[in-house]
Amino acid sequence: MGHRVGVTTDRSFHPAEIARNLIACGVENYSMVVFEDLGLPSERIRSFEDLSRVAGESFSALSFVLLERLGPAELPPILGLHDDEVLHEHGLITKPEVRAVGLSLLRIEPGHVVWDLGAGSGAVAVEASRMAREGMVFAVEQNTERVERIRDNVRRAGAYVVEAVHGTMPGCLEGLPEPDRVFLGGGAGGTGVLETVLKRLGPGGRLVIHVVLLGSLERARNLLEISGWSPGVTQVQIQRSRPLGGDLRLEARNPVFVLSADKPEKTGVEVMR
Amino acid sequence: MGHRVGVTTDRSFHPAEIARNLIACGVENYSMVVFEDLGLPSERIRSFEDLSRVAGESFSALSFVLLERLGPAELPPILGLHDDEVLHEHGLITKPEVRAVGLSLLRIEPGHVVWDLGAGSGAVAVEASRMAREGMVFAVEQNTERVERIRDNVRRAGAYVVEAVHGTMPGCLEGLPEPDRVFLGGGAGGTGVLETVLKRLGPGGRLVIHVVLLGSLERARNLLEISGWSPGVTQVQIQRSRPLGGDLRLEARNPVFVLSADKPEKTGVEVMR
Amino acid sequence: MGHRVGVTTDRSFHPAEIARNLIACGVENYSMVVFEDLGLPSERIRSFEDLSRVAGESFSALSFVLLERLGPAELPPILGLHDDEVLHEHGLITKPEVRAVGLSLLRIEPGHVVWDLGAGSGAVAVEASRMAREGMVFAVEQNTERVERIRDNVRRAGAYVVEAVHGTMPGCLEGLPEPDRVFLGGGAGGTGVLETVLKRLGPGGRLVIHVVLLGSLERARNLLEISGWSPGVTQVQIQRSRPLGGDLRLEARNPVFVLSADKPEKTGVEVMR
Amino acid sequence: MGHRVGVTTDRSFHPAEIARNLIACGVENYSMVVFEDLGLPSERIRSFEDLSRVAGESFSALSFVLLERLGPAELPPILGLHDDEVLHEHGLITKPEVRAVGLSLLRIEPGHVVWDLGAGSGAVAVEASRMAREGMVFAVEQNTERVERIRDNVRRAGAYVVEAVHGTMPGCLEGLPEPDRVFLGGGAGGTGVLETVLKRLGPGGRLVIHVVLLGSLERARNLLEISGWSPGVTQVQIQRSRPLGGDLRLEARNPVFVLSADKPEKTGVEVMR
Repeated sequence: MGHRVGVTTDRSFHPAEIARNLIACGVENYSMVVFEDLGLPSERIRSFEDLSRVAGESFSALSFVLLERLGPAELPPILGLHDDEVLHEHGLITKPEVRAVGLSLLRIEPGHVVWDLGAGSGAVAVEASRMAREGMVFAVEQNTERVERIRDNVRRAGAYVVEAVHGTMPGCLEGLPEPDRVFLGGGAGGTGVLETVLKRLGPGGRLVIHVVLLGSLERARNLLEISGWSPGVTQVQIQRSRPLGGDLRLEARNPVFVLSADKPEKTGVEVMR
Repeated sequence: MGHRVGVTTDRSFHPAEIARNLIACGVENYSMVVFEDLGLPSERIRSFEDLSRVAGESFSALSFVLLERLGPAELPPILGLHDDEVLHEHGLITKPEVRAVGLSLLRIEPGHVVWDLGAGSGAVAVEASRMAREGMVFAVEQNTERVERIRDNVRRAGAYVVEAVHGTMPGCLEGLPEPDRVFLGGGAGGTGVLETVLKRLGPGGRLVIHVVLLGSLERARNLLEISGWSPGVTQVQIQRSRPLGGDLRLEARNPVFVLSADKPEKTGVEVMR
Repeated sequence: MGHRVGVTTDRSFHPAEIARNLIACGVENYSMVVFEDLGLPSERIRSFEDLSRVAGESFSALSFVLLERLGPAELPPILGLHDDEVLHEHGLITKPEVRAVGLSLLRIEPGHVVWDLGAGSGAVAVEASRMAREGMVFAVEQNTERVERIRDNVRRAGAYVVEAVHGTMPGCLEGLPEPDRVFLGGGAGGTGVLETVLKRLGPGGRLVIHVVLLGSLERARNLLEISGWSPGVTQVQIQRSRPLGGDLRLEARNPVFVLSADKPEKTGVEVMR
Repeated sequence: MGHRVGVTTDRSFHPAEIARNLIACGVENYSMVVFEDLGLPSERIRSFEDLSRVAGESFSALSFVLLERLGPAELPPILGLHDDEVLHEHGLITKPEVRAVGLSLLRIEPGHVVWDLGAGSGAVAVEASRMAREGMVFAVEQNTERVERIRDNVRRAGAYVVEAVHGTMPGCLEGLPEPDRVFLGGGAGGTGVLETVLKRLGPGGRLVIHVVLLGSLERARNLLEISGWSPGVTQVQIQRSRPLGGDLRLEARNPVFVLSADKPEKTGVEVMR
């Protein structure tokens, strides 16, 4: 959501309803100005520093609402968040450079529905939301603590299009809207997850998988090939400098294999070969 | 610019002026609906399929303008454009994965002013504009043909916040607004370019340089160190699969060194040590 | 074979027999001095510039033979032969740095019997012979032209412990002595090759496979795992500088996966799990 | 030294002298058989299990000595020694794969004089001795403890052509014989070391430097360029598998830059340009 947003309202989508929706999404740091019956004798302008105060009021159906961010979110609205900006379990976060490559291979458009499966810290979901900013990003995670952490990171980032989904895959994917893009962080996921993804991804859909285990890479690749997809593999090897004795030394980060594939036009025929 | 945009107008910033501005920026595929004196007896609604038709009309000062995109741009509004999507000279384009790492290190925010120096095909500028979408991106290039190609790519991408600047650096940088972010694509640039960048970058500013030559890397790094900046070096090594005999083979892309540095708080003191 | 070699002879292993053996192995550039009945009244010393002249002579059973190299071999007796030193088909030679890693993982001792399977140009076999210099190196190759080229390279290198074997694997491996070390250059080889190698490698035996295809890597790895071996994978990524505009640029060579494994102590038990 | 070595003796180079020389070099695990006046009435054959027992005896000037190794050395006579085979300070040993690349770039011939400067654990020197087996390898190290460790490793490896030199460079290099090959392990060494090396390396000489610091790489490269040498840079990036949950994960080792250069034919002219 931007710095300053204007909304025209009607009987059902009125200012108090807007405020309640925002609060439910975790949006907190916005003020609201409500302009009722602008240009009419009944014109009235009220300013609210706190959205919770709006929720209980009633307003004219012909209102214009101006939302204004009170301050910047804790995290900048960028790609390339550092490890120390994102709350995460030690070692359980994809390095920013690898995330950048994975997200660029995902080719997310502003209106896309994105699934981030095995979301971990939610860093991928938060960054995906900078691109799917008019769409939806579902950060699916089984572990309760991690889900809490994802919600914290989303709130800190003001990344309100991200919704953390707490559940076990593939079951919990059933209720989610069809994805345009799917990111699978922990290899091929558990049994049935990749299969479900292949089914649910719509035409024009695209899938990116980060893998570090050689066997997982081959299993995911084989399943994709058998299903008639044509996966590509990108291996990302990053060296990062660290100061040493007044000079710089390059330290290697472990390589990551990034599988990427587009939904094939007609899967059925391919599967039969 | 989004799919559908609403603008309220006044005497100076009236619909015809808006249309003229848009045309000047290369925006073509939008229709415009102009609502004049809404809710008043003089209310009038007119729809224009072609912006050039709006430019000659006159309107009430109290108008509301609705711009609607007639169709998608030729290129998708994504990060991760493929080589064959971007017009470019053979071999003269940064590979998408490396661009992704460079842009993630640049940490561009929506309102930023970005300089892309030695812009080449403009691929970096176009992708930077997806992030600096409420800011400005200046793609500076000396070569006339390349400048034309950048303009083509910008138009094809609908990346209207990008402005191609044709000129010789560092001279041509003088007239540009202060940058928040600078991307230097061809090493350290010619004489005086990096020096100018260091001066012009404002507080909180950030610089990313892509280098492939070992000597250029050291020269840029030394200049930054001497100037009190603390550059980091990220080496990006990408392997990309290519089908071979029903299997996949990894092919290496040449490694790129990415220098990145934040504007130091107080340069002077550091320089004196 | 060294610069100067002394041999004491007897009735069956006499100087003419030695000369004939050397000629059969392709050894050409050695002179021979034969000392007959040293210290006895019948003492006689004859010098031969050409081994072929020795082959037809007869000698006392109590002779001492001194072989002296007439000049250096065409190729230096080193590890690290450049591509342009070894005769090879375009593109069909393992780069020297990768060969160095593969050979170091093979841990060849002076007395070892080494099989180089799918020997190609014979570069691996020639370099292996620098380490197995008191052993035997069999360079197995199916293609007739390549076998000729291997023989040329062996002669040019003076690598006389290398024997080129022309045949189809695994059949042609039957007649070869049990290997201590096996190098498999072209992935896992054809059907049955790797299986044969696993059987024939003796206790303490070691296997190294160079693979460039992801599927081949997994097939070889799986066969090794199932057979109770514990293969390790080393990925070698080499960047090599090339001069560019008075500076140096790093160019990437395609990465190679090197599988290495020791013969397990008791294979049977492992296979049953 | 081989498994079994025969030597003919004379008045000055007699069996006791041979035994004393061997002991001085640290050779311990050999037996000696001395054949005196073979074929003469005074013929006598004596066998010694311990070289120290030979040192005090006297022998005929016309003796033949047969040295036989009593058992294998503690370390195998190979390239590719593992970290846990070589005594070393934690972290202070070049990884075997990188050592393999460096040594292959050094192109050591059997008769070469090799300097290993900043020898550390002596692993490079020990492996170099497998190639310079008729030459000499000087392992130069300033640190007393490390020198002791080098001697231990040499003894354990039976690498008797290695001589550990305890001293400060470049001063301590003065007394050493001219090198054919120089390996510089710790970057460019201290002040004056590289300069000395460039002077002392004879025609046809070759130099290899392992560097991990970006600034050191450039300093060494610049000095070489200015001196008329044309150094090449090889960057070695190794990934090594580690078992993880029944699968294999690739772990990156830090990259190493390997500078290599041949002594130019006529340095003087080049320097003057």
